[in-house]
Amino acid sequence: MATVGVVLSGCGYLDGAEIQESVLTLLALDRAKATVRCMAPDIDQMHVIDHLSGKETAERRNVRVEAARIARGSVEDIAAVRGEELDALVLPGGYGAAKNLSDYAVKGAACSVHPDVARLVREMLGARKPIGAICIAPAVLARILQDAGVSATLTIGNDAATARDIASTGNRHRPAPVTDIVVDRKNRIVTTPAYMLGPSIAPVAKGIEKAVKEVLEMVKRPGKR
Amino acid sequence: MATVGVVLSGCGYLDGAEIQESVLTLLALDRAKATVRCMAPDIDQMHVIDHLSGKETAERRNVRVEAARIARGSVEDIAAVRGEELDALVLPGGYGAAKNLSDYAVKGAACSVHPDVARLVREMLGARKPIGAICIAPAVLARILQDAGVSATLTIGNDAATARDIASTGNRHRPAPVTDIVVDRKNRIVTTPAYMLGPSIAPVAKGIEKAVKEVLEMVKRPGKR
Repeated sequence: MATVGVVLSGCGYLDGAEIQESVLTLLALDRAKATVRCMAPDIDQMHVIDHLSGKETAERRNVRVEAARIARGSVEDIAAVRGEELDALVLPGGYGAAKNLSDYAVKGAACSVHPDVARLVREMLGARKPIGAICIAPAVLARILQDAGVSATLTIGNDAATARDIASTGNRHRPAPVTDIVVDRKNRIVTTPAYMLGPSIAPVAKGIEKAVKEVLEMVKRPGKR
Repeated sequence: MATVGVVLSGCGYLDGAEIQESVLTLLALDRAKATVRCMAPDIDQMHVIDHLSGKETAERRNVRVEAARIARGSVEDIAAVRGEELDALVLPGGYGAAKNLSDYAVKGAACSVHPDVARLVREMLGARKPIGAICIAPAVLARILQDAGVSATLTIGNDAATARDIASTGNRHRPAPVTDIVVDRKNRIVTTPAYMLGPSIAPVAKGIEKAVKEVLEMVKRPGKR
């Protein structure tokens, strides 16, 4: 039975983890009988957005505390998680990936990534363990890969500006429809566009199910070190 | 194509809508190509719970604003929704049903239900349009049914105290496993235990998929007035 880390970035697509993508990831993993470990940085969100009006509020919320709403309680501090404890890692999307796990939303391709998120991804890469990244998360992953000297093929769907950002990190962007995935077998990375394309939860679920299935297939075929 | 109202009660199972149940409801409805209208009361939550510690915080959050995190924006004020605009209504669970849509969490079977939630349910009953209720929501529904003079057969799984509360409203409780539903054909009400039983998202999804499917089947076979 595979143990899979799921990196959450809050709770709500405008300032945290995309809820539907996160739940669909948990669903696909539970259906495959994987052991799931949800984790998040124990930091304040960049900001809080009223999801009805789309406007910023004066509130402060903690990324890990809010992520616990999606996970129903158990969300580990990502600082305490080691790659050797996991068989695979999946990063759902939402602006939280670009605002809390990194500052991609502000700085684009030159963004900084939360040190423990970057460290955990590097540990997975170093051990040739599979990584799944959903929606905007591949743009954050691209920055980590750049620092690690890895050049991978990723998708965020078809958004030209984000694809250019990915290319500028020395990675390759390949367009894909929402229901599909892009698989980098060499680097053992699986990506799917999800709500970068939408338009609704059923097609998003199809892409995420494929991505999780491929990640778990990779776990069964360990990579050469 | 059916138009189905989904009544949300916040965002997070300890003080709002159960996120996973809500997302699974939206997924099943979108897969069936239903038109979904998410709605919630425009009121403050009873309270805010830190989902990591389980403790109450000093924050204030609005039920409808938080529900918009799950729905990705569009959540109507339930006060503005009429039963005649809908073909069916589904109420996911979470403590929000028992804390925000009603005060069942505090008062039990003698609870009061938010007037617009009660009104909309009565409009659906009066028009013989199907209603689905998930997790703890059937206990809230039971109170509305009591006031409407309707006696239905419902499930919340097997929790003895909640089953007694349902019986005390003049409705019947029938035990069911998490993967199954209880169908009251006379009153056109479908219920499933979800996280009243758990233990994880895959079996919860199975029950909710069955519930949504049965509700949509009922839409295709209009009830006699």
